[in-house]
Amino acid sequence: MAAVIEQARQEPQQPSDRASTPVRAGRRRSEESRRAILTAAYELLAEAGYARLTVEGIAARAGTGKQTLYRWWPGRADVLLEAVTAHARQHIPLPDTGDHAADLHAFLAATFAAATPPTTDALRALMAEAQIDPAFGERFHDTLLRPRREALGTLLARAHTAGALAPHLTPATATELAFGLLWYRLLATHEPLDGQLATLLTRTLLR
Amino acid sequence: MAAVIEQARQEPQQPSDRASTPVRAGRRRSEESRRAILTAAYELLAEAGYARLTVEGIAARAGTGKQTLYRWWPGRADVLLEAVTAHARQHIPLPDTGDHAADLHAFLAATFAAATPPTTDALRALMAEAQIDPAFGERFHDTLLRPRREALGTLLARAHTAGALAPHLTPATATELAFGLLWYRLLATHEPLDGQLATLLTRTLLR
Repeated sequence: MAAVIEQARQEPQQPSDRASTPVRAGRRRSEESRRAILTAAYELLAEAGYARLTVEGIAARAGTGKQTLYRWWPGRADVLLEAVTAHARQHIPLPDTGDHAADLHAFLAATFAAATPPTTDALRALMAEAQIDPAFGERFHDTLLRPRREALGTLLARAHTAGALAPHLTPATATELAFGLLWYRLLATHEPLDGQLATLLTRTLLR
Repeated sequence: MAAVIEQARQEPQQPSDRASTPVRAGRRRSEESRRAILTAAYELLAEAGYARLTVEGIAARAGTGKQTLYRWWPGRADVLLEAVTAHARQHIPLPDTGDHAADLHAFLAATFAAATPPTTDALRALMAEAQIDPAFGERFHDTLLRPRREALGTLLARAHTAGALAPHLTPATATELAFGLLWYRLLATHEPLDGQLATLLTRTLLR
């Protein structure tokens, strides 16, 4: 949870970031509430699971009102989505050392290392919610899935330009193979996401 | 839907198949009800979506009682799971021609061709339900996911023995890559599952 809090500290919101979100309280007060709410959501998810996670519970734990929470997020899934997105941005750098295999391995290893409970619980809950609620599914895709794909796609496009991508693959299909395996293990087999998997993917996706 | 009905006709249940399920009505009557229920569940899913699918609605459409349905299945997700599993068994043969690339491509192409609405809607709903309800998740895994993985694993193990699998891959990891990509497109990107994808996977997984 320290990660989410740190993320909020390191990236103070600019007015333009929240242009579509009315902010009625002062900036400082809003940011404190926001951080407290993200932290509360993650803690409650870890303690009791998604089935028991409620907007009321998050607000109570954060010491804020339900109205404050609903001012910023449509519901519990969107709170978790913001917490997970901050966690991913914080823990998964996009290396560019010129060594394509080392960069890809580092990115994948950092991605897998960031996928520990309660982040994994949040990811499973969010993917499920996205299937049940298509409007949330679009926000999930735009906020987390697509930016993650774009990050890996940038790295793989450099490898492709250098002729280092495996034959028959494009940066887009290689990205899908990597995130497909990540999600399949998260959702279906619960097999470990570890350095060994990062090595296997690096060897499969590059020449 | 004809597929589900045909499947039920072609594979009459043996008493041992349903050893754990009490069957109180006559065999013929039970099989008719079972087929009607699977058909009704698929039709209602296609018409109104998973959010509106209820046990009551399935029973009414099938012209049977809720009690009959609950005698065989714990709920709506398990009815859909049986319909999807029958659909997969019916439409996805396991070829063994000795040409590993042709066999793999045929298996993947048949898998993707079988993934059309409402089967795709059912698959998304079942994967979501599996995240929310861990007990259903185990049944989903044992009934559909693992048997599908075993089928592809058998095919890839033959390729591996013949030295045709891509370096660094095992039959198990190659299977995860293929189904990972299938599920990622189903759940996340909604990109097409087509012959082009079968070709890309065949080239990636084999030498």
